[in-house]
Amino acid sequence: MISFARGAPAPECIPVEELADCARVAIERDGVAALSYGPVGGYGPLREWLGERHGVGPGRILVTNGGLQGLVFVAEALLARGGRRVLVEGPTYDRTLTILARLGADVEAVPMDEEGIDPEALAAALDAGPAPAFVYTIPTFQNPSGRTLGAERRRLLVELARMHRVPLLEDDPYGLVRFEGDPPPTLHELAGGDGVVYASSFSKTVAPGLRVGYFVLAPELVAPAEAAAVSSYITPVLLGQATVWELIRRGGFEPNLERVRGLLRERRDAMLAALAHDFPAGASWSRPEGGYFLWAELGVDTADLLGWATAAGVSFVEGSEFFPGGRGGRTAARLAYSFVTPAEIGEGVARLAELLGSRD
Amino acid sequence: MISFARGAPAPECIPVEELADCARVAIERDGVAALSYGPVGGYGPLREWLGERHGVGPGRILVTNGGLQGLVFVAEALLARGGRRVLVEGPTYDRTLTILARLGADVEAVPMDEEGIDPEALAAALDAGPAPAFVYTIPTFQNPSGRTLGAERRRLLVELARMHRVPLLEDDPYGLVRFEGDPPPTLHELAGGDGVVYASSFSKTVAPGLRVGYFVLAPELVAPAEAAAVSSYITPVLLGQATVWELIRRGGFEPNLERVRGLLRERRDAMLAALAHDFPAGASWSRPEGGYFLWAELGVDTADLLGWATAAGVSFVEGSEFFPGGRGGRTAARLAYSFVTPAEIGEGVARLAELLGSRD
Repeated sequence: MISFARGAPAPECIPVEELADCARVAIERDGVAALSYGPVGGYGPLREWLGERHGVGPGRILVTNGGLQGLVFVAEALLARGGRRVLVEGPTYDRTLTILARLGADVEAVPMDEEGIDPEALAAALDAGPAPAFVYTIPTFQNPSGRTLGAERRRLLVELARMHRVPLLEDDPYGLVRFEGDPPPTLHELAGGDGVVYASSFSKTVAPGLRVGYFVLAPELVAPAEAAAVSSYITPVLLGQATVWELIRRGGFEPNLERVRGLLRERRDAMLAALAHDFPAGASWSRPEGGYFLWAELGVDTADLLGWATAAGVSFVEGSEFFPGGRGGRTAARLAYSFVTPAEIGEGVARLAELLGSRD
Repeated sequence: MISFARGAPAPECIPVEELADCARVAIERDGVAALSYGPVGGYGPLREWLGERHGVGPGRILVTNGGLQGLVFVAEALLARGGRRVLVEGPTYDRTLTILARLGADVEAVPMDEEGIDPEALAAALDAGPAPAFVYTIPTFQNPSGRTLGAERRRLLVELARMHRVPLLEDDPYGLVRFEGDPPPTLHELAGGDGVVYASSFSKTVAPGLRVGYFVLAPELVAPAEAAAVSSYITPVLLGQATVWELIRRGGFEPNLERVRGLLRERRDAMLAALAHDFPAGASWSRPEGGYFLWAELGVDTADLLGWATAAGVSFVEGSEFFPGGRGGRTAARLAYSFVTPAEIGEGVARLAELLGSRD
């Protein structure tokens, strides 16, 4: 099976040998701290570094066992303060939709185009109902669409949120995995840190199995988010955090990231080339400058297509998974180029193209 | 501050050097599995080993980021099946009470004596109201009391639960940390694995910061518990689990456990000796054969005592923290001997004794 479904890094993206040494050194240097109960907010030196990077004190950094887990805590805290309505991009990350459903949120998708969420549609949604508890957005190399919100729209989004006094939850696990072009400012930067909770992770830049995600919290969210974390797990897994910190401390983070960018750029290029060569004329797709995914509009019901594709040995995630209640994306697909080799990408796209019919 | 409050192992209990090497070897041997997304149930080789140890297939083992986190998933699944009522021991683990309150459970404490939960009181509670969703018990070296349920009472408890068709949740993180005497069978063993969810952890036998807890699930709980885990964190932290597995694989688990038992036995002995020597005649306390804690009945309001004690540089946890709604334990205290040195134990007990008044 050639998997365009798995949103995971290819095994060769993970610096196994270096992390083995980092884990050993992290324990030898600071073993009792890394191996005992500790601060619920995470491993001290890593929090300090993240705080400096994002212009806040370390007390506003919450490092969690992966970004998703922190999302549960933060969404719960925001819902407790602001009611049940939540606005998201349509499409958006399916696991976030699952979490929000479990937390009892009323989730509405705001339409996107190639430049990300549509500011006019967002303004209309903000005017239409009760003020949402928050707006959830993945502005850079979005999961699932691969799209990036333009700089001007970022300013509009921050301005809209400020006018309506609605918090933004900016989920940015892919931002550093950029293959080309200049990064736009984060919403958190544009807002001067005000009214935006920023979330990121080391899953895409170091290794997902270390489960090290983090949040830059608004001051009023620190106590409720830490309380939720304490009563979920007392202390996060500090060993993974100390291992990430050791990689940073010894200067290995940036070189590894550059290596990962190269590996993924090659895969992105392979997929774009194969799509352009093989896919029929009616199909269209996004052209991400980074991240793991692209979004294809195929003009056929992708639930049906997935059945045929699976039988043909290639998988993807159907578009409807990324809309609240499955209301949307019926003819779309998320194609991940992160996990498979360039050769597999060529072969997988060819198999999909055959199912879709030749381009003439 | 001499802390009889911290229920954590003393730093010297943690085999730092050996775990540094285990982490390195675990990554070198199986790096991609340990460092990427993986099965939500946990690291394969560790699940296999746990399954064999507990007489079930590995699919019934759920390894979580510490035992507490799994407790959230399992309690949620049991409450969804069996209604809101939960019976616990009075006193019981305070963090469990917090979790159950967050999940909306109606928690009732069943009285204990020196031999653990009182079977007659439990029978009366089972007859009195709607069938509880489950009975939560820590039968061995209980937190907070240090008490161990006798073998005959274990049979009665399993029989009562079977008659009333009420699941037991057996929380057993301390059972292996036994200083003397023969271990009674677990409830899970007595029940032939039927109707009992068994929970334990490597926090007390290896290191708490690795956050490796586990559950032996009833077959019908596997799907809901795994679903809750997936949507909380996708994959648990496999690095900690692979590190524990490497310690087991190389034969280091039992020798380390024997070493930990010796370190803690010495502390338990120091506390019992100091209490017998210094505490006034009206006070009484449990004499645990293992674990981290003992429970003292002091005949004074321990909320008041804690204020004076803190000023005198010694801390403990007041008994009322371990009863639902704080309804109980007003004159009791949990004294942890796990974290402090034997010399500090002597000094801390002397300070408390001075506050309590001399024994004649």
